[in-house]
Order: sequence, then C-alpha cells, then structure tokens
Amino acid sequence: MSNTTGEIFKVTTFGESHGGAVGCVVDGMPAGFAVTDADIQTELDRRRPGQSPVTTPRKESDAVKIISGVFEGKTTGAPVMLLINNENVNSKDYENLKNLYRPSHADFTYEQKYGVRDYRGGGRASARATAPLVAAGALAQKYLKEKAGIEFLSHTAAVGNVSVKADVSALQTLMRAQIEQSPVRCPYAEGKFMEAEIAAAVKEGDSVGCVIRGFIKNLPAGIGEPVFGKLSARLAAAVMGLNAAKGFEIGNGFEAARLRGSANNDAFINKDGKIMTEKNRNGGVLGGISTGEIIYFNAAFKPTATISKSQITTDKQGNPVEFTAGGRHDPCLAARAVPVVDAVCAITVMDLFLIWRAYARD
Amino acid sequence: MSNTTGEIFKVTTFGESHGGAVGCVVDGMPAGFAVTDADIQTELDRRRPGQSPVTTPRKESDAVKIISGVFEGKTTGAPVMLLINNENVNSKDYENLKNLYRPSHADFTYEQKYGVRDYRGGGRASARATAPLVAAGALAQKYLKEKAGIEFLSHTAAVGNVSVKADVSALQTLMRAQIEQSPVRCPYAEGKFMEAEIAAAVKEGDSVGCVIRGFIKNLPAGIGEPVFGKLSARLAAAVMGLNAAKGFEIGNGFEAARLRGSANNDAFINKDGKIMTEKNRNGGVLGGISTGEIIYFNAAFKPTATISKSQITTDKQGNPVEFTAGGRHDPCLAARAVPVVDAVCAITVMDLFLIWRAYARD
Amino acid sequence: MSNTTGEIFKVTTFGESHGGAVGCVVDGMPAGFAVTDADIQTELDRRRPGQSPVTTPRKESDAVKIISGVFEGKTTGAPVMLLINNENVNSKDYENLKNLYRPSHADFTYEQKYGVRDYRGGGRASARATAPLVAAGALAQKYLKEKAGIEFLSHTAAVGNVSVKADVSALQTLMRAQIEQSPVRCPYAEGKFMEAEIAAAVKEGDSVGCVIRGFIKNLPAGIGEPVFGKLSARLAAAVMGLNAAKGFEIGNGFEAARLRGSANNDAFINKDGKIMTEKNRNGGVLGGISTGEIIYFNAAFKPTATISKSQITTDKQGNPVEFTAGGRHDPCLAARAVPVVDAVCAITVMDLFLIWRAYARD
Amino acid sequence: MSNTTGEIFKVTTFGESHGGAVGCVVDGMPAGFAVTDADIQTELDRRRPGQSPVTTPRKESDAVKIISGVFEGKTTGAPVMLLINNENVNSKDYENLKNLYRPSHADFTYEQKYGVRDYRGGGRASARATAPLVAAGALAQKYLKEKAGIEFLSHTAAVGNVSVKADVSALQTLMRAQIEQSPVRCPYAEGKFMEAEIAAAVKEGDSVGCVIRGFIKNLPAGIGEPVFGKLSARLAAAVMGLNAAKGFEIGNGFEAARLRGSANNDAFINKDGKIMTEKNRNGGVLGGISTGEIIYFNAAFKPTATISKSQITTDKQGNPVEFTAGGRHDPCLAARAVPVVDAVCAITVMDLFLIWRAYARD
Repeated sequence: MSNTTGEIFKVTTFGESHGGAVGCVVDGMPAGFAVTDADIQTELDRRRPGQSPVTTPRKESDAVKIISGVFEGKTTGAPVMLLINNENVNSKDYENLKNLYRPSHADFTYEQKYGVRDYRGGGRASARATAPLVAAGALAQKYLKEKAGIEFLSHTAAVGNVSVKADVSALQTLMRAQIEQSPVRCPYAEGKFMEAEIAAAVKEGDSVGCVIRGFIKNLPAGIGEPVFGKLSARLAAAVMGLNAAKGFEIGNGFEAARLRGSANNDAFINKDGKIMTEKNRNGGVLGGISTGEIIYFNAAFKPTATISKSQITTDKQGNPVEFTAGGRHDPCLAARAVPVVDAVCAITVMDLFLIWRAYARD
Repeated sequence: MSNTTGEIFKVTTFGESHGGAVGCVVDGMPAGFAVTDADIQTELDRRRPGQSPVTTPRKESDAVKIISGVFEGKTTGAPVMLLINNENVNSKDYENLKNLYRPSHADFTYEQKYGVRDYRGGGRASARATAPLVAAGALAQKYLKEKAGIEFLSHTAAVGNVSVKADVSALQTLMRAQIEQSPVRCPYAEGKFMEAEIAAAVKEGDSVGCVIRGFIKNLPAGIGEPVFGKLSARLAAAVMGLNAAKGFEIGNGFEAARLRGSANNDAFINKDGKIMTEKNRNGGVLGGISTGEIIYFNAAFKPTATISKSQITTDKQGNPVEFTAGGRHDPCLAARAVPVVDAVCAITVMDLFLIWRAYARD
Repeated sequence: MSNTTGEIFKVTTFGESHGGAVGCVVDGMPAGFAVTDADIQTELDRRRPGQSPVTTPRKESDAVKIISGVFEGKTTGAPVMLLINNENVNSKDYENLKNLYRPSHADFTYEQKYGVRDYRGGGRASARATAPLVAAGALAQKYLKEKAGIEFLSHTAAVGNVSVKADVSALQTLMRAQIEQSPVRCPYAEGKFMEAEIAAAVKEGDSVGCVIRGFIKNLPAGIGEPVFGKLSARLAAAVMGLNAAKGFEIGNGFEAARLRGSANNDAFINKDGKIMTEKNRNGGVLGGISTGEIIYFNAAFKPTATISKSQITTDKQGNPVEFTAGGRHDPCLAARAVPVVDAVCAITVMDLFLIWRAYARD
Repeated sequence: MSNTTGEIFKVTTFGESHGGAVGCVVDGMPAGFAVTDADIQTELDRRRPGQSPVTTPRKESDAVKIISGVFEGKTTGAPVMLLINNENVNSKDYENLKNLYRPSHADFTYEQKYGVRDYRGGGRASARATAPLVAAGALAQKYLKEKAGIEFLSHTAAVGNVSVKADVSALQTLMRAQIEQSPVRCPYAEGKFMEAEIAAAVKEGDSVGCVIRGFIKNLPAGIGEPVFGKLSARLAAAVMGLNAAKGFEIGNGFEAARLRGSANNDAFINKDGKIMTEKNRNGGVLGGISTGEIIYFNAAFKPTATISKSQITTDKQGNPVEFTAGGRHDPCLAARAVPVVDAVCAITVMDLFLIWRAYARD
C-alpha cells in the first residue's frame, strides 16, 4: 500500500510487467508549465531495453502518452497521468517459473506476503515498474532545469571490479552529452573496460553488478527537511527502493567511518566571496540540508538475478529443482539504471524544492 | 516540517539541545499494553552520555517521563507523550561559536535554510535530538518482543580501521547481554581493539568514525510495502536520517556490485521443512519484503565533527578564524549510536508490522 | 496536489472532463480478492448519465477496465488502476465559455489558482471527476460486504421542497433494490413527488437542489480514529469534497443545536443482551467512533449550476455578458449523486476498517 | 492513530483530561517569526473555563509554555512544542462513572475500540483535548494576520432557538472586539437573549445546543487543493472533528438544497474593477477554492452531554443505572467553542496557504 511518494509533489505508480500497462499519476506539478509527450519520451528512451550491446536485446518501444493534466500544451494543475502500454506480454513464457522460487528474485517474498503471485516476468517486482518513475522524473527534471538550473547527471562509477578513478572534483564540468556517448553511461576512460567486463559476463551467460554515482548540480543551499525528511535520507530511500539496490553512501560515505575527525572534517572557506567547504567531503549535504555545492553519492546494484546459466533452487513444495531462465535479460543494470537514478533524484528534489519554496520566500 | 515519521505508527519528535526539553509523541501504540517509565529509561540509559570511557564524560540523567496515553499502567490508544527535560543548559558556553561555521557541522546549512540559528550546542541538529527516538523505539521494541518475539540487536562492526571479522552466520546466536558487556558495544574479540582505537583518538584530541551493524531477529516473512515502502528503503531512510550517518548497505551491499550473478545469487533451499535462502546474502530482504530470515545491514558514521584540536574555518562574514571546541564530546559514536540504530529500526518495523497485520489476517 | 486520499487504503484519481481518460489508482486493496470489470461497471452504471428522465439525456457508456493489480481474476496486492476512457469529447462546444466566468461554477477560482484553465466541460472541476471515485468505491463496497457484511445504502431524502417524512427507524429494513427501483433513488412514497419537482424544473429550463441521506449498515463498533480521523470528520470531508456539496450533518445534526441536553441525550439500553443507544440520535457515531448501530447523515447539494435559462455574468475583462449554456445537463444531482455518496463512504470506511483491523486483533 | 493533521503545517496533539499535561507539536512553522508565551496565552484565555456565567465555573489557569522551537524570541524552523500542564486532576471524582456508559458521551465507543478506558473526565475524548488546538491555532492566527492580513472572526449564531437575524452582509465590518464584549461571543443584539437561554438551562440543571458561525476574512483567492483537499472539505473535517460537532454547512448550505438553480446561482460582477460574486452565496468557496471573498459557514454543536439532572443509562454489565453527574460543566459550548473554531480554521488555512505559496509564486 505504498505506491505513492512525496509530500506535496506526489508520484503514484501502477502496473506490473505483464499487465495492461504501467504508468503513474504526478500530482503537484505546477500549472502553466509547457510539456509534451516527447519531453518525457526522451528520458524513457534512455531507459529503454535494446539500446546497445550492454543491455538486453529485448525490444520494447515504451511509448508514453500524457493522458490528463495537460491542456493546450501546458500543465493545468490537475494530476498528470502518464501511460505506457505493455507490449509483447506473452505470459506463456513464464509458465515454467510459476511453481518455483528463482534465486535472489522476489518470487518467494511476494508469495509470502500476498498469498498470490503474478509470476509473469516478475509482476510488480519487475524492473519494468521503474519506467513510470522515469516518466515522472522527466517532468521534474524539465521543471527544475528550466526554473532553477538544477541538473541530474548520474553515471556509472563501477562495473564488477572496474571502477572510475576520477576524483569527485572532475564532476564540476561534467555534462549529460558526455555520459550519453558511452553505451555503459560512464563518461570516463574506464567506460571501455566496463563494456568489456559486461561482454565477458554475457559470454559466460552471467551478469555483473555495478555502482552508479548519483550527481545533482546547481541545487541551492537549504533543501532538505530535518529530522525525518533530510535530503540524504530521502535520496537514500529513493535509491534503496529501486530494484536490485543494495547500498547507498553519500559524500565519502563508508570511507568516513575509517577516518579520524581531523582528517575527515571539512573546513568552510571563502571562495571568491562565496562560503563553501574546502573538499565537499559530505557530498553537498550537512545536517540533512544542501550546502549549495554539488550533491554526489554512490548506489550499489547487485548483478541481475536472471542469468542464462543453469541454477538449482526449490519449488513451492520445497523440492530441489534445476532451471534455466530463458529469454533475454540485462547482463548489467548500469546503462539502464542511470536514468532511473536521475529520475528518483529529480522526484525527490522536486518535492523538497517545492516545500522549500513555501518557506524560503517568507 | 518533517518531524513526524510513519504511516500508522507515527512518531513526532521535538526539542533541541538547549531548549526546555526534548521528547516525542508516539501515535498508534496499540491499547492495553503495559508500559512504565522504567521500560523506556532502560533504553535511554544505553544511549546516555558518561556511561564509559569511550563516550563523552558529560553527565546527563536523561530521565524520561510518560506524560500522556497511559492509564493505570497501560496504554489507552491515546497518543503517548514522552518527555525528557534538558538539564545543564548553559548557553554561554556557546557564545564563541555563534559567529562561525564549525567544519562538518550543520551550522552553515541551518542558517542558509532558516535564516536564524539556535547555536546552543547544535540546536535541533544536535545528536540530543536522537534521545526521543530511543524513547519511542523503546515502546516499539517492547511491543514487538512481547507480541511477536522480534528483537533488535545492533552492535558495533568497525571503529576506524578495526573491523569485526566474524561472519554473518555468527549472528544467529547473538544476545543483547553479549553486546552490553562491551563498552563499545561490540560482542566480538575485536571490541578490545576498538576501545584502544578510541583511546588513541582521545589522546590526540581527535575522534574516529565507525560502522554499526544493524541486526533484526525473528521478523516474520512478508514485512515491507513495495514500491515506496520497501523494508530496505525504509530502514535506509531511518538510518541515513541519523546524525553523522554517511552510508547504508543491506546484506552483502557494496560487495554485490563487484560480483557476477552466478556468485551472488542465493538459491532457496529446504531446511528441515522451511524454505529459506542458502546464504542470506540479501540481508533478509528480497523485493523489499522480509524473507523471514535475519535482517542485517551496515551503517557508516563519520567521526564526530567536534574535536579538541584547534581548527580553522570561516566566520559568517567569510573571514578565516581559528577555534577550539571546548567542552566534552564523544570521541566515537559507536557505543551510543547502537541503541539509536536499534530504536529507529524498531520504529520502522513497528509501522510496517502493523500495516502487515491489517492485511495479513484477511 | 491533493488527489490522493486515505491512510492505508489510498485512492488517487486523475482525469478531467475532456482529457483522454479519467480513472484512479487504488492502493492498499487486500490481495487474493476476486474482482472483475463487471463488478465495478455495476456501480458506474448507477452513476451513468442518460439512465432516466431525471438525469441528463447525454449518453456516455463509462466503460471501466482494470489495467493493473489483478491477475487470474484476483487482486495481487499491487495497485489496481481503473481506466475509463473519455468519449464524445468535442472541445468546440465550449469555445463560447472560455472567456467568461459561469455563475456558481469553478471557472473563476481555477483561473485564479492555476493561471490557466481547461474550459472544456469544467475540466478537473467537472462532476466527471467523480466517476473514478465510484470505480474505487465499487472495490471497497464489494470487499466490505463480502468480508464484513457492511452495506452502503444512501438514497435521496429531499429534492427542492419535497422531503422524505419517514423516520430514521425505517432505515433498518431498507435494501438496495428498493432504492434502485426509483428513478430519483428515493425508496419512499415521496419519490414520485420528487420526480415531479424535477420535471417542473426541466420544463422551465431550470435545476433544483437536493439532500442525500448517507446510510451505512452493519458497521462494527470501534471504527474511527480520534482526534483527526474521527469517522464523522472523515465522512464529512469525503462528502464535502464532492461537487456541489454545501452541507453535512450527522445524526440529528443541526436540530441538536436547538435542543436541551435532557432532550437530546440518548441513554444506553440493553436490547436483548446488546448494549446500544435508545434512539441513535448521534447517527451511529460517538466521540468520532462507530457505536455498532447504523450510520446516517444528510448531505446538501446545491442545484446544478448549469441551467438552460439565459444568465448574465462577467467575462475575463470584467465586462457584463449574457450567455446561455447549450448542451444537456442534469436538472438535479439526486439520482446520480447517490452512488457517488455510497462510493466515498465506502472508500472512507475501507481505510478506517483496515486501520482498525491492524489494532483490533491484538 | 490520527493525532497529526496537515500536509506541510503539521499539528500533533497529545494529552487527556486527567493526565500529566495536554499540548501539541507544531511542525512547519516558518522560521524567524516572533512569538511569545503571551501571544498563545491570549487565545487560550478565550477558551478558558470560568470566564463568565455562561461557562463552567470550574477554574483552570491553562497556562501555556513554549518548550521548543523558539530561540531568542523567534521560531527557528524546529518543531514548536506547546505544553499546558493539567491541574486539579482528582481522579476520585470519576470513580462512580467508571462502570457505566454516560448517555451521548464517548465512554462506550472508546471502550469498544480500545478495550481499556481512561474514565477520568472523559480521557482523550474530553473537550480538554481542544486546548492544544487553540494553542497551535494561535501561532497560525498570528502568522496569517501579520503576513497576509487574514483574520478569524467566528462567533455565536444561535443558542437553542435564539438565532442571529443579521444577514451575512453584516459580516464585512465585524471586528474581534465586538465579539469579545459579549459573554456568549455573539456580536449582535440577540446575544442578550442567548445569555438568557443559557441561564434558563442552568436553572433547570440542563444544557443547550448552539450554532457557531465560522468566519474568515481577507483570505486571498486560490486557497484550497482539489480534489481531496478542497477548502470547504478541509474546513468541514476540522470542524466536524471537534467534540459535540454535529453539522457543517458552507455559504447558504442546506438552504441551497431547497432552491432552484436560477435562484441559487450567483453571477460574477465587476465591483470597482474587482471581479467577484454578487451575493457570495457559496460562502467564499467555489470548486473547493477560495474566491477572495469572505469565507463563512455554520457549525452545529449539540447540547453538552453532561447535565445536572438525574439520568438513566446502563452499566458495563448491561444493567440499568441511575446517576447524576456531579461537578461543574458548561451549560452551552457557545462561548468556549468560538476560539476553538477560530483555531481549527487557522490551522487548516495555514497549511493550505503554505502549499499555495509553494506554487503561486512560480
């Protein structure tokens, strides 16, 4: 019963892998804002399967349509419903899975919780449920960029054992185009090695994990609502709510746990008349509130649970069973998770930005 | 404006370091449940300063009183207000801090956000704001243990570079008493080295970071509300909302990002008639829902920002200024953060447990 | 930004009169519950235009489809999206209205609030926005009836100056079929006079107001959440949120304000071993919590603002302008408001019922 | 579990009649706003018992203290906790009531819902629970008046059969001082007859019902959030959530149900360059959004259930029992309900005003 997120910018998503459609209702979009299907499609295309060798070869158009809340090209203040019809929904492909619990999937827990399970392609637990997030996030991204210059520039920081070496200071000049020119959405030299890592996994019928670096630019100081709506906590919840997410760290994160205070503390300096921290070790957040510097964090995603190799697990009756997942699947989430991370960051920031605006202009 | 958390078990906290009191309103506590001031005090005493050489020598009694919602020793269904009066609130001690921004503290961001700042001991951003969480969590812990056998057994997993080596499998037999006998709340041999690590930091007027391992036992399968109220996401938000929290990872967390799917996948097995995973690599959560196995995660906390060493930062006008934090402060959060992590886990689980109960008994 | 209602049974509606579709997302529907398109269509058909001479002659099929959340005929625990495509959406019909403010419509206030206005048929302020409520309410009604025997039996109590004389005690034996056999949905003899009253208004190109008596049967004692979620307050909000609603009174309502305490007080009696009130003057609610007796209230609806008579108002520039509303419209809301009142009562009760269940079975 | 209200201006109340204290946490108060204990006390004094012959002679000082969220006389953005200690809490006075269900009180329903009952003076169901609302409302009233000129001027419109004849048009010039000079808080000539009506009831050991006219002045156009947060619906919920509330009607309310559309419709006119309605029959709200004109509504309150006359009811075992309520009680709620109605209106408007501000200044 938790398919709505946000305090005043509320996004409600619906839909499962093989139902009639997936989509979302975006409630709290400011009125009078110009938006078209194409604006949203652009972001969905970043998430679309089949876009490159590092993603699943499955083809889905993921065409989105604005169903309500927009009149003569502008938002009206009414809720914006965005609909993405499901294609290619052949339930028969999943008959062999209906009686077993795939390893590291949600089959078992959904059945424990709900008694019934929509076994077709993972049902509501499918990564397909992230498409509506991308659609809603596209609205938020467009608004925040046009009204406040805020940009979302997440990218891949690691695939398996290949990690980006570039320091956080390199982020300052990063642009979306640089991210997009890499199939794995890594704007640095290591991107090529990541592609090779994924190719190696594919060859073995395997998958591989990854780390996405979340990155938000031009966020003003003052965003975030202590004590339960801190920016860091809200971003953590948004990211950890994504399929396959296993970890979140902001700023220097887990490294901070190993340091002395004298080494970790980050003095305020006066840089050309602007007060800011020397190193931004806290990732742009102090006390749960944005400092006005760049926001960055790491999000760990496990390797896709669906692999081509044969696996052994149990069926509903508790008998061991060997199975092989047919079909086409992503060998690594990296490329397609990047736009999803951008989306949930934008949804989160949009909500906190509007709340901030209610107060900041007193 | 986000000082209330929870969907049906709602906890609202209030109070700042040097105001009249800190406390909380616990709304949604089932009626007819026996609870006394002492039940709550027990948990607050675990968080109390001055309890051992690894915590601040500052003395505060942190005496809690049930002000409402309990009649003749039992909850009535009315909101339970828990009040902890502030003692020892000498604002003068902080006069020297009112015009500067302490490194890695929230002074700057609070001022950016609110225009004004309560500079006395950190105000609302003080770790003192976690005392009400411990009080509210005590109610939840008592209820969940008595009604469902659920236990919260977080403990220290690392201090600086000293980490616990014990495997997760060792958790099965862990008990609260073992945790409590260690001043640093580490139930393993490494606890002694952690104490030494903290003593070394104290000697240098420094502080040191730590990792707390969150651990929840006997949680039934089916807890957690996809897609925005997943157990993993709710725990991440709860923990990342704590002072000094920098990272969260559930199960094998960031390690999973480095693995192949075939190495990370965790088959279901039939263990004496009970279906469960072989290794519980996912930390007891799949698809955001509990599996019925133990829940474990790591939470990274940065070293306390207040240290005795002299530091340089800027004042409000942007001038560099050297300062030394007087007073007594925690050299490491480990010991006192453990009961806080238990508390926020219990508050989170209590909410999800009650929601689950609304549906599970259909 | 308030298009979602409910604490754990959450209904989000979307859609405007002449957009692509109207619909809703029902989040928190218990899993494993059998439901079909037809179950929902039955309630929508009660609200459908063109069903009798007392409603608008406009024809709309209002065909509803379950898009998500149901698999093999049963709910899965995933959000249920219900979609009703808009037909017959000819925006040209409204060109003449786009520059003026119709009396007692929301044209002016929507424009003041949002800057833009979807002038086609009232946009989001159209009574068409109640169709999704009826769809969501159908799910709640079916569940509550099957699982707990709770029934929703609202009916028309007054049209213009024609009021039902039957005492509240007559409600005990009322059945849905009796309500449905009257075109104006009044199960008493006065229904015939109400039909005549509406016919008279139609003849003059006018409309007429009405009172709907809300009526809920078999609700157990204990439903309602003090102090801000009282059953009476939640029902009032639900009903006063409907188009054209002007008043709400529960039990003897405004009459109570004229009485002495000794005349109004309602003693508890022992009726065949069951403790209940003598007269149920409070409408089945005391202290905001259900008593276990029948719930009844009155809801006042103003006459439809759209009439065929010529009217004078101002245009956007503030110039007086004479206009006549073309098209077909309801001369009285009575018949079609009854299923809407049932729906919002059911949505409200479903939420409070599930919350109650989370606690009641302790 | 519903003791918090509001979307971004959140008020959480706690406390029962004879517990340690009653109070509230006000979360979302803009920072930097000057407020003192005395500002809040002023409103509480309006609600205080013992202020005149038309209220209970019981003496309570109801002294309020700001416990948190204010520093150096200004709000800090942290939650504001307001505490009112209970005095005079002699539980023994209620021993005779603990085994019976008083007519038209919440004894029975609280016991049905919670299993246990705090029988001391009504517990959480006591009208004492409205004191924190008045305290929270005082903050909202002060802010809205100083920042936007919005005023809350509710007053008594009827006591028993004595009703104010003055037309709504008379409201335009009404001032708080005129209301306050009448013991019954009726600023019109009928106030004297109301006093007499109450005196007559007192003489007979009886009580009498009343109608409060809610009145909000200078509210800008555009306040209210369709479709579930309409201003009219939110006000209805706020008022119907009060003790003894039985009815709510906005504008011409139930009268509208008796009218033809041509008689009820309210044309827009151009009054000195400002577009407004001719008669404001809708009470300042159209489509759930404020028109910029005055807001007015009626709220019906039943006669106080506690009377001095002997009454018969049943005890817990279902046996008939005669009892007489000892102690001192209000013979009519009118005088003391007026500040409570002002308070809940202010709390409601504050929340909607802040949300409006988040969007209106795009």
